[in-house]
Amino acid sequence: MTALMEQGEICRPIGFVPTMGYLHQGHLSLVHRARQECRTVVVSIFVNPTQFGVNEDFDSYPRDLSRDLEMLEPMGVDIVFCPPVREMYPDGYQTFVDVEQLAQILCGARRPGHFRGVTTVVLKLVNIVKADLMYMGEKDFQQCVVLETMLRELNQACRIIRCPIVREADGLAMSSRNVYLSPEDRQKASCLHQAIQLAQRLCRDGKDKADEVIPVLTELILSRGGQIDYIAIVDHVSLQPVDVVDTRSRLLLAVRFGKTRLIDNGAIA
Amino acid sequence: MTALMEQGEICRPIGFVPTMGYLHQGHLSLVHRARQECRTVVVSIFVNPTQFGVNEDFDSYPRDLSRDLEMLEPMGVDIVFCPPVREMYPDGYQTFVDVEQLAQILCGARRPGHFRGVTTVVLKLVNIVKADLMYMGEKDFQQCVVLETMLRELNQACRIIRCPIVREADGLAMSSRNVYLSPEDRQKASCLHQAIQLAQRLCRDGKDKADEVIPVLTELILSRGGQIDYIAIVDHVSLQPVDVVDTRSRLLLAVRFGKTRLIDNGAIA
Repeated sequence: MTALMEQGEICRPIGFVPTMGYLHQGHLSLVHRARQECRTVVVSIFVNPTQFGVNEDFDSYPRDLSRDLEMLEPMGVDIVFCPPVREMYPDGYQTFVDVEQLAQILCGARRPGHFRGVTTVVLKLVNIVKADLMYMGEKDFQQCVVLETMLRELNQACRIIRCPIVREADGLAMSSRNVYLSPEDRQKASCLHQAIQLAQRLCRDGKDKADEVIPVLTELILSRGGQIDYIAIVDHVSLQPVDVVDTRSRLLLAVRFGKTRLIDNGAIA
Repeated sequence: MTALMEQGEICRPIGFVPTMGYLHQGHLSLVHRARQECRTVVVSIFVNPTQFGVNEDFDSYPRDLSRDLEMLEPMGVDIVFCPPVREMYPDGYQTFVDVEQLAQILCGARRPGHFRGVTTVVLKLVNIVKADLMYMGEKDFQQCVVLETMLRELNQACRIIRCPIVREADGLAMSSRNVYLSPEDRQKASCLHQAIQLAQRLCRDGKDKADEVIPVLTELILSRGGQIDYIAIVDHVSLQPVDVVDTRSRLLLAVRFGKTRLIDNGAIA
């Protein structure tokens, strides 16, 4: 691929959609947007081992490459990049990128090493693909902030284009991990989006204190059988907790249903 | 600068010589070679705070920008990049690059965090400058290996061109830190190069066991008043100690004279 680009056969801007495969409409919305905005569109499919903890679901993460390629077929993608693990991480691989404070809170606190794996693989992919624009969904809100920080602080030319969360009919944010949910848990999981909507209503009604809002959301989610990993209302740039909700605030949720950990988020003011 | 490049006014390959200033003939040899091989030559002068330990010489590191610029004047450099510290590391800066095993041994073991600072600043500079080729002196042998590993493993397109050590008449490797030496220590310090030459003679005479060679070098350096930080004979790629010297081996020395820590190295077979 790089050789092709050096021959000048690939045109800029190069839009890049990094994925771990098992594609859904959320991914396709990123590809669609990249196709509209870029002369070359590259999608990567790579289940990145370094971003999974030792007790996490790397081995069981859903994979179906031929289905993924079929879904991409009508999208007008120029290149689908599916490297083998040993090509990305040869024997003795030892270089990693850390975004310190932002990667240690929220999901980073619950998944040690997760963001180190994400930042490292994304930097590698951006360099391989020579991406100008990288399209990412806001479902992984902290990931967007961490990666924007990394690219900016390392003076990489690539810029992130954040795209809105794509949801199922009942509001559940699309995720490859949704297939893990039992039918009952799948139904319960819609309470994440309901919690975001409830928070929006509360704020609209003047209940804009984080310590008023969070207990109400906690009650809703517990009543639907979710095990709360965290519910946080944070500044959308620093990711630090805020006391009073305003337009710079973001509600972030991480909740388990059975063994499946789901995340969601939304602006609430 | 980036804007200029994007307008197509700067031509590739871009050759880059990163320095901490207080230039000497070693630096100029790198600039000279870059000028021969590249259409655009960029020199950076930046005393990088993140690669100095808390008790090291960041504040006292020699600086003389106008002298540096005068020395570069006849060299045909296109751009001299001298960023302020706060531009490279704005408030809240938090992204760092680690090369793990290679950066923890030898100088890395004696200077915790040193290589993390080096890898981070060099990646930033390479991205800012959009360097194709980076010219580095082999005096900092471990640094060359660590940075080559970083660039390769992060899939950066930039390649390192290693250049030979430039020495004073008595063999002392040129270094900005040589100005720290008292006249007596300056004279004693030539024993580093003598140790390398002695090792070469020993090997030529069939004394090719590391545990035969190192004690002889130790004796020489101690007799000249050097305090040995380490003397190591290592594989030139893995930097792991070897038992028997061969053409893949490198002798690495780190020795203090007074408060000044000097390094040197050479192939000895």
